[in-house]
Amino acid sequence: MKKKGRFITLEGIEGAGKTTQLAVVRHYLEQQGINVLTTREPGGSPIGERIRALLLDPTGQGMAATTEMLLLFAARAEHLLHKIRPALEQGTWVLCDRFTDATYAYQGGGRGVDLEQIAMLEDYVQGPLRPDLTLLLDLPVASGLTRAGERSAPDRFESEAERFFEGVRARYLALAELYPQRVRLIDAGVSVEQVSLQVREQIAAFLAGGGR
Amino acid sequence: MKKKGRFITLEGIEGAGKTTQLAVVRHYLEQQGINVLTTREPGGSPIGERIRALLLDPTGQGMAATTEMLLLFAARAEHLLHKIRPALEQGTWVLCDRFTDATYAYQGGGRGVDLEQIAMLEDYVQGPLRPDLTLLLDLPVASGLTRAGERSAPDRFESEAERFFEGVRARYLALAELYPQRVRLIDAGVSVEQVSLQVREQIAAFLAGGGR
Repeated sequence: MKKKGRFITLEGIEGAGKTTQLAVVRHYLEQQGINVLTTREPGGSPIGERIRALLLDPTGQGMAATTEMLLLFAARAEHLLHKIRPALEQGTWVLCDRFTDATYAYQGGGRGVDLEQIAMLEDYVQGPLRPDLTLLLDLPVASGLTRAGERSAPDRFESEAERFFEGVRARYLALAELYPQRVRLIDAGVSVEQVSLQVREQIAAFLAGGGR
Repeated sequence: MKKKGRFITLEGIEGAGKTTQLAVVRHYLEQQGINVLTTREPGGSPIGERIRALLLDPTGQGMAATTEMLLLFAARAEHLLHKIRPALEQGTWVLCDRFTDATYAYQGGGRGVDLEQIAMLEDYVQGPLRPDLTLLLDLPVASGLTRAGERSAPDRFESEAERFFEGVRARYLALAELYPQRVRLIDAGVSVEQVSLQVREQIAAFLAGGGR
């Protein structure tokens, strides 16, 4: 693949403010005259959205962690083939609400799936493709869950115990340490305006660096 | 896992007569006083059946071969956890309409998915579990498709070209050569009575050998 667009992902636990910040990033990039495609995982393609529905269905309690991970990568393969890769090849920047870091965090950190198995599937499904920039919106689990709880009925993931989310957050933070160049930590425990400011600064720095 | 029941699978292309022969095997085993659980892939669990619907939906043309394979193993992980392993552990014999050999045949032989990738997922999802006996109902592709065509509207797999099924059949036959002890070749191009006779003979030999 001759990748021409840039691939930016937003990550973070429930209630971190990804949806709001996705709009901030999109607006900022469009102001620079960049074509942006916004998408999300799991989902982002017709088959992917059906897999998403299966994954989030609260009646699916008891789903094997292995099943969950394979479904995520199945949706991802579809997403890459039909949406992400074609956009990048056309020079469109892709802005994605969650990607494989979330699999490391939720299935690895949260459910205890072997990280090497995730890495194996990552290589198989993505080849060498990785995000060019990842904004990790970090905040204490309790704050995130309080914010998310005010929004809507919990899906299957949101119904998990706080301990699960502590594992998710810890794995996210470990990824930021492992890949400091790619994964930029944003303090999401402050006001929306302050979070947006940090996000815009990171995007500005990324652009100033030539979009890496 | 302490496996106590035996795990028998039936394989073959469309129109090979698996459904009929599954009933023959079941009847034969039950006559010997053996508890039998009959199941099928993809499917066999609530989540698995939803994945099955996704896989067979004729509107899903264009699904990536990788997606298809990951969905199959996702359903299989669920099937193993909630149905196959618990039954075997209780001493029930499991009789399954298609299993991982079908992934080698359809996704590997038919779609050209790398066989090593399938083997990697097989090891990951199943650990050391393999069928104890596999009956491969073999017949020429044209005959199978004619029989299947008389039954109902084609699903996404049945809509494939004859060449696809030639690849499937060739891979099935290669598996019978690779694993002659486990995979027993049945000539399914003859009358139902003659096929049933071969099937009963194979089951009788398997039982005589102590169910391996």
